[in-house]
Amino acid sequence: MSLPSHVRLVEVGPRDGLQNEKQPISVADKVRLVDDLSAAGLGYIEVGSFVSPKWVPQMAGSAEVFAGIEQRSGVTYAALTPNLQGLEAALAAGVREVAVFAAASESFSQRNINCSIAESLNRFEPVMDAARQHGVRVRGYVSCVLGCPYDGAISARQVALVSRELQAMGCYEVSLGDTIGVGTAGAVRHLFEVVGREVPRERLAGHFHDTYGQALANIYASLLEGIAVFDSSVAGLGGCPYAKGATGNVASEDVLYLLQGLGIETGVDLPRLIEAGQRISRVLGRESASRVARARSALA
Amino acid sequence: MSLPSHVRLVEVGPRDGLQNEKQPISVADKVRLVDDLSAAGLGYIEVGSFVSPKWVPQMAGSAEVFAGIEQRSGVTYAALTPNLQGLEAALAAGVREVAVFAAASESFSQRNINCSIAESLNRFEPVMDAARQHGVRVRGYVSCVLGCPYDGAISARQVALVSRELQAMGCYEVSLGDTIGVGTAGAVRHLFEVVGREVPRERLAGHFHDTYGQALANIYASLLEGIAVFDSSVAGLGGCPYAKGATGNVASEDVLYLLQGLGIETGVDLPRLIEAGQRISRVLGRESASRVARARSALA
Repeated sequence: MSLPSHVRLVEVGPRDGLQNEKQPISVADKVRLVDDLSAAGLGYIEVGSFVSPKWVPQMAGSAEVFAGIEQRSGVTYAALTPNLQGLEAALAAGVREVAVFAAASESFSQRNINCSIAESLNRFEPVMDAARQHGVRVRGYVSCVLGCPYDGAISARQVALVSRELQAMGCYEVSLGDTIGVGTAGAVRHLFEVVGREVPRERLAGHFHDTYGQALANIYASLLEGIAVFDSSVAGLGGCPYAKGATGNVASEDVLYLLQGLGIETGVDLPRLIEAGQRISRVLGRESASRVARARSALA
Repeated sequence: MSLPSHVRLVEVGPRDGLQNEKQPISVADKVRLVDDLSAAGLGYIEVGSFVSPKWVPQMAGSAEVFAGIEQRSGVTYAALTPNLQGLEAALAAGVREVAVFAAASESFSQRNINCSIAESLNRFEPVMDAARQHGVRVRGYVSCVLGCPYDGAISARQVALVSRELQAMGCYEVSLGDTIGVGTAGAVRHLFEVVGREVPRERLAGHFHDTYGQALANIYASLLEGIAVFDSSVAGLGGCPYAKGATGNVASEDVLYLLQGLGIETGVDLPRLIEAGQRISRVLGRESASRVARARSALA
């Protein structure tokens, strides 16, 4: 067993998290959250999404958020851009890194973005071209990699095909998302074995949801497979859109606690990260979903 | 990596769980809980504790609970008996398996049971003798194996010494408890490596608390070390006595979900286990701490 000595944490709270919170929050609160996160040492923050506010009202004002944040050197501030219009808006806002997403499940793709997996990949082509022209890096997400709310089981082979396609189109990294949190450690290891045959492991990331409490076990399983990039959401922002009241994105604080325990470097300061999570939880008027934050505040 | 094909789950909810719930519940509700758990397929249930109700009012009526439960064949119904008086009361109640507990931390031993580790082991001698005379098996617990609320870090070597002592005194199995839930996966593997040199791994069990969200990752790490017995508490009963509002014992439902995902046999039925947990949570007037139970009920 040799674990990576360093892990890169991709903080998705301001985007994937807030997008799934019922209550939209102000641009000022978003700016503060992003600044708190960079101050805590996070080197990669997904700040917002350039999509129609008609579909995702929580992401309105992403350009203003980009304009308002303190851009620390060495920190990547990324945006989700599902189509060319979104990419252009992101470029106009000065965004230098974007992300696109595809599903590993046909039914999920149809219900979530109204087209087949193949069609969604076709739609990304002009996004990839324009990004390349502007020297903007593109990260790819694959959702439902360990199960789909409509189709149930998803084959690792299918995930591998979509991942390979995203890489071939120019994504420098592909993040594999257990969107509904149903996966367990053995399936995670199998997934990275199979996908790792198509995409080098150093270009893969894990994106786990804690809906069934499995996220940290799955991250540990991923580390054992040599994966060294993980997406997480401060305070577990986001919840689970497929099971109201249940947990969604794994909390960044809990991931960091695990990594620190394993002696793995991240550059992130746990107390400051916990503070950032407590502040945004107060804004949302709800308790943090991070167990580490809860334990620390109960002990304080 | 070769995982055990079968795991024995030791259900500690009726004892370790309810003992740490503020609200004492009726004998009838305890009987129902134990019967629900055996009906779900659990083969080992820690039913109660024979201690003075002055110290642990939640455990009053343990004899009545033993008298009231349906004793299914093949199921072990155990009781905690910290001293000879407790053992005699347990024997009078027809108990056929008991447990004793020691701490791996001197400060915890002093504050929790008012004596040193060595003194606590001395106190068990008459318990072990009497149990042997009556053909009653004794299981040993060691608490604070990965950290102590007073002393901080605990050395694996110290845990190994206490565990060896308990085995030498006649405990057929020693359960290593991360009482405050601070341990992470690497420390767990190291612990079993070190303790495994003194006590064979097939005589060791893992007892994890989810206070920092690490329990399932720690169980997965233990499985990778060949450990095949785990203590857990239905609905996560018990909370954390050292951090009010935080999580304590890992929820049995979440452990079972992990094991099922890994293809490991337990003989336990998940939907019936979830039902048992939902029922006792209603009695206590609180939400289940099992993420699996929450996700399933949110989806229902």
